[in-house]
Amino acid sequence: MDSRPNFSPSPSRLRLRRLGIDTYQEPVLFMHRDCPVCSSEGFEAQSRVEIGLAGRTIVATLNVVTGDFLAPDEAGLSEAAWRLLSPSPGDQATLRHPPPLESLGHVRAKVYGRRLTEAAAQAVIGDIAAGRYSDLQLAAFVTACAGDRLDLQETVDLTRAMFRAGERMRWGDGLVMDKHCVGGIPGNRTTMLVVPIVAACGLRMPKTSSRAITSPAGTADAMETLAPVDLDVARIRRVVERTGACIVWGGAVRLSPADDILIRVERPLDLDSQGQLVASILSKKIAAGATHVLIDMPVGPTAKVRSDADAAHLSRLLHAVGAALELTIRVAPTDGLAPVGRGIGPALEARDVLAVLRGGAGAPVDLAGRACSLAGEILEMGGMAAAGAGRALAQEVLRDGRAWRKFQEICEAQGGMREPPVAAHVREVPAARSGLVAAVDNRRLARIAKLAGAPKTACAGIDLHVVPGDFVERGQALFTLHAGSPGTLAYALDYALQQPEAIQVVEDAW
Amino acid sequence: MDSRPNFSPSPSRLRLRRLGIDTYQEPVLFMHRDCPVCSSEGFEAQSRVEIGLAGRTIVATLNVVTGDFLAPDEAGLSEAAWRLLSPSPGDQATLRHPPPLESLGHVRAKVYGRRLTEAAAQAVIGDIAAGRYSDLQLAAFVTACAGDRLDLQETVDLTRAMFRAGERMRWGDGLVMDKHCVGGIPGNRTTMLVVPIVAACGLRMPKTSSRAITSPAGTADAMETLAPVDLDVARIRRVVERTGACIVWGGAVRLSPADDILIRVERPLDLDSQGQLVASILSKKIAAGATHVLIDMPVGPTAKVRSDADAAHLSRLLHAVGAALELTIRVAPTDGLAPVGRGIGPALEARDVLAVLRGGAGAPVDLAGRACSLAGEILEMGGMAAAGAGRALAQEVLRDGRAWRKFQEICEAQGGMREPPVAAHVREVPAARSGLVAAVDNRRLARIAKLAGAPKTACAGIDLHVVPGDFVERGQALFTLHAGSPGTLAYALDYALQQPEAIQVVEDAW
Repeated sequence: MDSRPNFSPSPSRLRLRRLGIDTYQEPVLFMHRDCPVCSSEGFEAQSRVEIGLAGRTIVATLNVVTGDFLAPDEAGLSEAAWRLLSPSPGDQATLRHPPPLESLGHVRAKVYGRRLTEAAAQAVIGDIAAGRYSDLQLAAFVTACAGDRLDLQETVDLTRAMFRAGERMRWGDGLVMDKHCVGGIPGNRTTMLVVPIVAACGLRMPKTSSRAITSPAGTADAMETLAPVDLDVARIRRVVERTGACIVWGGAVRLSPADDILIRVERPLDLDSQGQLVASILSKKIAAGATHVLIDMPVGPTAKVRSDADAAHLSRLLHAVGAALELTIRVAPTDGLAPVGRGIGPALEARDVLAVLRGGAGAPVDLAGRACSLAGEILEMGGMAAAGAGRALAQEVLRDGRAWRKFQEICEAQGGMREPPVAAHVREVPAARSGLVAAVDNRRLARIAKLAGAPKTACAGIDLHVVPGDFVERGQALFTLHAGSPGTLAYALDYALQQPEAIQVVEDAW
Repeated sequence: MDSRPNFSPSPSRLRLRRLGIDTYQEPVLFMHRDCPVCSSEGFEAQSRVEIGLAGRTIVATLNVVTGDFLAPDEAGLSEAAWRLLSPSPGDQATLRHPPPLESLGHVRAKVYGRRLTEAAAQAVIGDIAAGRYSDLQLAAFVTACAGDRLDLQETVDLTRAMFRAGERMRWGDGLVMDKHCVGGIPGNRTTMLVVPIVAACGLRMPKTSSRAITSPAGTADAMETLAPVDLDVARIRRVVERTGACIVWGGAVRLSPADDILIRVERPLDLDSQGQLVASILSKKIAAGATHVLIDMPVGPTAKVRSDADAAHLSRLLHAVGAALELTIRVAPTDGLAPVGRGIGPALEARDVLAVLRGGAGAPVDLAGRACSLAGEILEMGGMAAAGAGRALAQEVLRDGRAWRKFQEICEAQGGMREPPVAAHVREVPAARSGLVAAVDNRRLARIAKLAGAPKTACAGIDLHVVPGDFVERGQALFTLHAGSPGTLAYALDYALQQPEAIQVVEDAW
């Protein structure tokens, strides 16, 4: 690391320019090789540079430009850097060496097998939340903690450091219910049913959800096809005061901001770390003000948690960390073998939710059943039902229309309810042979839905017509592709036809 | 990781364009958001993309452009990507998903504490050398192996995988001497003396050196001020056949290419790993065809090896790995307290070397002494001197002009000898008080030399006038700054005046 020279012979200022380069959230600065600041400050490609504007500073990684699309008196910003600084056109920023990143010493100590102390976790997470770590440094921290190298106390300290580094919502006295799904199952849109069921029974459930990161739809994406989700803290508070609940996008609230930053390197590295997973989940929940959290944990070979042993280990860790941080946790292991509901994609998933709420004949029973189980657990946790009686209560609230009325109430409070969009371009994908639907590959289905345009195109995705155990005839539709344009439809179809493992049909052996 | 769809509905081709963006060696691809390939292939920011051109393929990280400096039918390349593909203007490249990176499984296994097997090391290093790892993935591998997590056998296997992944120079029968300095001491330009001394005694010493990575000058930078160093393999061979030695830049030969790639992430992470250091050093030497290697290991608080215990541990590992790979190793711990010679910077270091070779009155005795010690060790290893008699032989060869004649011979064979350039802008930096020169901070001096323009400006750097233990009067020159322009001179001077710790003068206590 460079250390910051403790002087500045002349303030180094350059005109900021938005280059329109999406570096996937890493703030990147572009300076011309002939830029006076580059040579006077001794910056070179890959240097970390502190950019200051009107009292705000960010740290970015430098790319040195020799091309002519950037002038020597300009400092070009990547989209992430531009968002963080939000300059006005023509603004001049100050460029200097960032202070030495002392907390990297703690990362090195962890690499060397020493424990991450509470103070170390606070220092590292504070610097990460402030955007002071480069992607390489983030990758080193993630790797140093992966492979189950965090013990219980380290996980507790990391979780605490993570929620302390951001905002924390407070809801006053009383219970605040929350739920989280560990993920990996497309279409698992139970949240939009659980929240109205639980709230209709009188429990408070302010739910902040994420948009899709790698999946074809996040809860916020699906909910957004029915009502606005991009609310600020004051609006969220009003919705919850009025209805007892909300289903909003968490991005407008700075809850556990280090988590969002760590996720951007955890994803391409695909390094599983139970300690980091627990810290990620629970720090968000504590920051959101929850007192009771139900963890929906789908277990299956193509889900995130792949075995019962992994599920048991993760459950123990969640309970232990929750206990240390005064958060009541209940874990519900669920079937992670196949998608839940029929739709995969924002609008198609919202359509399934509406069908269940409205109680129509075609409503997916698996989605309704799973939502009632989960809501039942929360009702029991919150003292609204005796042990074992929660599910029945949830079913009753769903059947008699109370959940549907509560859902409409929430949508209206969030800004008004709307119908989900419907795709103009659809195409059925037929079975290549007659036989038994033996298996469904969640990852391949997710990829097909994304190729069809989900989640960006809200109406795009997959409508499943079969589940494992069904018998199909050759040529019978396995699923229908939904797309926003003929081109993406054709592309997703081509791909789907080459992926027979997505929905595996085996010939009848009898 | 994305898996590669096993089809391609239409080959995805775009016109390549050199954008002139230096991303510090990571190959980066820029595509416009509206580019048809982006949407049809499902690429998004941070996707890894395989770029194919005329049978050659590289893998690059995608940045998505929304600005207007790139057209939708263009694929912009960073400098590193452009170098690797070396396209002609207007060339069209094929863009597709790279094959799944199976070797990442071995990295994950190492993260989880399992051993890196020989097959795993071959697979990982093969993919790294082929440029298939992103910087994030490289950082994960480096971190997983750091903290002394590689045992002896893993280090041997890693070393073997590294030299096998590139070219290997072969020199026929007989001894091939080499040396390596572990680094951290500015101005330690002994190689340019050791090679002619050793070669003058009849030992073969084909020396490939590096350019500066973080220092104000590498051996290749200093040598280049006296003779061409950028020779291809055939030229190198001719020089060695004619003179028995060479001092060239190793960059033109693909020796242990994974090492160069790993270094680009090790540097910003600053994670010390003795296993990786040994694999890095020895894989380069074996690839260069050496049979006997002397390791110059400066030990000192601001050198790379900071304590005698570290030095002992590193020595043991070097010997053990060398023995396993049939390489004879000798380690020479040297004083790492202060710079060697007077000059810091390519031309100033070359000037010191010339002074020693020519035997002038002002030649730095510390540089001459150290070079003779190291050369003596090599002469003993090569059987040219009895144990303990090598240093005296080296001194004789230096004193009687044989080394100087051999050096001139080498320079002529490499393309012709020249005088090093002299800076037009110089300025003395005076002592702020009278007293004893107590300590010299190698890192601060290196930074001042770099601010003055070294190594890019060959004549730039620092000329030291004092060594620890000297007494100085207030106002007496501690060193002279050399620069290529008045601006950089003023800048480096400003900085130097604020860094009294660079050369620490303590007042006389008597």
